[in-house]
Amino acid sequence: MIETDILIIGAGPTGLFAVFEAGLLKLKCHLIDGLPQPGGQLTELYPKKPIFDIPGYPSVGAAELIDNLMEQIKQFEPGFTLNEVAETIDKLEDGTFIVTTNKGTKHHAKAVAIAGGLGSFEPRKPLIDNIAFYEDKGVEYFVKNPELFRDKKIVIAGGGDSALDWSIFLAEVASSVTLVHRRNEFRGALDSVEKVQELKKLGKINLITPAEIVEIHGENHVSALTLQIGEDKQQIETDYFIPLFGLTPKLGPIANWGLEIEKNAIKVNNALDYQTNIDGVYAIGDVNIYPGKLKLILCGFHEATLMCQSVYNRINPGKKYVLKYTTVSGIDGFDGTRKEAEKAVVKSID
Amino acid sequence: MIETDILIIGAGPTGLFAVFEAGLLKLKCHLIDGLPQPGGQLTELYPKKPIFDIPGYPSVGAAELIDNLMEQIKQFEPGFTLNEVAETIDKLEDGTFIVTTNKGTKHHAKAVAIAGGLGSFEPRKPLIDNIAFYEDKGVEYFVKNPELFRDKKIVIAGGGDSALDWSIFLAEVASSVTLVHRRNEFRGALDSVEKVQELKKLGKINLITPAEIVEIHGENHVSALTLQIGEDKQQIETDYFIPLFGLTPKLGPIANWGLEIEKNAIKVNNALDYQTNIDGVYAIGDVNIYPGKLKLILCGFHEATLMCQSVYNRINPGKKYVLKYTTVSGIDGFDGTRKEAEKAVVKSID
Ligand SMILES: Cc1cc2nc3c(=O)[nH]c(=O)nc-3n(C[C@H](O)[C@H](O)[C@H](O)COP(=O)(O)OP(=O)(O)OC[C@H]3O[C@@H](n4cnc5c(N)ncnc54)[C@H](O)[C@@H]3O)c2cc1C
Ligand SMILES: Cc1cc2nc3c(=O)[nH]c(=O)nc-3n(C[C@H](O)[C@H](O)[C@H](O)COP(=O)(O)OP(=O)(O)OC[C@H]3O[C@@H](n4cnc5c(N)ncnc54)[C@H](O)[C@@H]3O)c2cc1C
Repeated sequence: MIETDILIIGAGPTGLFAVFEAGLLKLKCHLIDGLPQPGGQLTELYPKKPIFDIPGYPSVGAAELIDNLMEQIKQFEPGFTLNEVAETIDKLEDGTFIVTTNKGTKHHAKAVAIAGGLGSFEPRKPLIDNIAFYEDKGVEYFVKNPELFRDKKIVIAGGGDSALDWSIFLAEVASSVTLVHRRNEFRGALDSVEKVQELKKLGKINLITPAEIVEIHGENHVSALTLQIGEDKQQIETDYFIPLFGLTPKLGPIANWGLEIEKNAIKVNNALDYQTNIDGVYAIGDVNIYPGKLKLILCGFHEATLMCQSVYNRINPGKKYVLKYTTVSGIDGFDGTRKEAEKAVVKSID
Repeated sequence: MIETDILIIGAGPTGLFAVFEAGLLKLKCHLIDGLPQPGGQLTELYPKKPIFDIPGYPSVGAAELIDNLMEQIKQFEPGFTLNEVAETIDKLEDGTFIVTTNKGTKHHAKAVAIAGGLGSFEPRKPLIDNIAFYEDKGVEYFVKNPELFRDKKIVIAGGGDSALDWSIFLAEVASSVTLVHRRNEFRGALDSVEKVQELKKLGKINLITPAEIVEIHGENHVSALTLQIGEDKQQIETDYFIPLFGLTPKLGPIANWGLEIEKNAIKVNNALDYQTNIDGVYAIGDVNIYPGKLKLILCGFHEATLMCQSVYNRINPGKKYVLKYTTVSGIDGFDGTRKEAEKAVVKSID
């Protein structure tokens, strides 16, 4: 059982920044995310794109913003349960919660903050009859750990940035990379398209277009695929099949937690602390809804901050909290580090 | 008469970021501030100090954050009325506003956003009988324009960072700089104290401590000061007297605008758009109050954003606004510039 003060569901920018604000209040956080890495939409959907409306950043790359947030929170030693989806919640008699993931990992927390964005990302799956059978047996919808493919034969399907970028990356890892797409045209960053072109010429990526994968073969693990190329069919041997057809977010299991839902988002009390209809369960960032709500990163930061204050009051009833400026008081990390402004000196001049 | 969409009172971080969010909605902003420079508390009170709780910045200097905000908003060409305090507000029949400063400058706007922080900064003044007579006649509580002191004799009084830093800066500008403090010890950044020590040794700053200025002389302009040094009095000639004894913020004239005030701050509707009890007048950042309010920079950013959306709806009734991501849609500046993410290409690989 993982123990924490605030359990945060969703490691997007909102959930990550909540760790920082909680840390200032000496509250410990643990995050669950269904994706293999933190960063939410930013790392999963547009890591290389610039964002222009983060206050104080005329421009910042999405992945860079997440790196900065990870650096900002590291002193507060957040725990992570990645690659797992929060599935059930139970409220105990003492007002604390147990949240269990699809893999059975249990988390016990004094408060729960849902920072689930548009929901957990579900891969768009190719329409192949027996594909479910091969999931985790050679069919992978995410590249969770590139080392899995070391010296293996892999087939990637798709025509967007993910398919291009993973083909490029895995060309150095796998023994062979085949990229299959149902059109000749790819849609992605110019340099990615050009890099694939180059790797194809060097024989490091086999490109098969326009083509579609229509059958999967193998006893207990993928061993070959059938491709439909125009009128013809062709079979190729492979160890892994990685269809990268994009992700759709689904509110998912959270929708059944008894929370008030409106327009696929969770209603919160924005007049106070972004708490939901369940006492002790908060919803912050893209996942919540209230009058005037804007699904923007900067709004999630504010909501996370007010949520943490509310949890502090919940956990420390009656204790009066006096806001401290980080500039004035510095920051004491849970890892023993201290950040502080250079102190003024009192010194005579002679 | 200055014409604008949103008139922002206060050019601190909140007011500055409002310019950006308004610009995304094609609304033009003008800012009034009583100080000679934008940045509010950050540039006036702690420009060289690091801030640790700006989301995405593990650490950022206060002046650096303001520079970044100025860079972020410049494409939306904000207007500035600096060195003037907003004094009166009049609501016209058509629902627009005229705001007049203490110097008589008039601003006409469709909406007013008060981002006045803790209020307009008023200097702590030395207790010298006739000092009011010499204000603007040789007595200056702020260094608004260092060039005023070019090749002049000046006397600075004070023992903190402002007194130290301006003595250092003006040592290169004025013909002579005398620094007077009632103690021997100065309180400030170590390098400032050391620099003053060095300039004193070089004869570029005359240091007189412990001493106090007790009289001001001059026909129609400061020409000399009397110093009390222990039991003795001494008279020194000077063109300017700059007492830098710190600033205290006062809500000031805004307190008489008919706004609901609580704990020296303006009550707003935080459940919707940070509007005050006067329709069309908003209050954002440190200057407002609502249940759970935190006087933090990041909260002002969020409040500014929601305020702009509300003003947009007010100015364009019935027009449906669809939120656009800056990453996806880019930014069209009022100055004709365009910022955008590199576009994806659609390209075949052969
Ligand atoms: C192309 C694009 C461009 C954008 N541009 C901008 C922009 O310029 N400016 C801006 O402010 N915003 C922009 N956005 C929106 C911005 O990305 C979101 O506002 C932001 O990601 C919200 O952060 P979040 O932390 O609330 O949620 P997310 O980033 O969505 O993160 C939520 C996380 O929760 C996880 N999760 C959900 N449910 C569960 C569960 N049950 N168990 C485990 N994990 C779960 C998900 O896997 C996900 O990682 C853009 C979005 C897109 C797609
Ligand atoms: C030493 C110190 C350290 C701090 N550290 C932190 C920190 O680490 N993190 C954090 O988030 N916050 C910190 N703060 C607080 C932070 O500075 C404020 O939250 C922030 O400045 C508020 O921004 P604002 O734009 O709302 O108001 P302000 O920065 O106060 O700006 C308001 C402006 O309005 C002007 N004004 C007011 N009334 C009028 C009028 N009638 N006419 C014309 N102009 C007017 C004032 O001159 C001022 O320039 C700190 C504050 C101090 C003093």
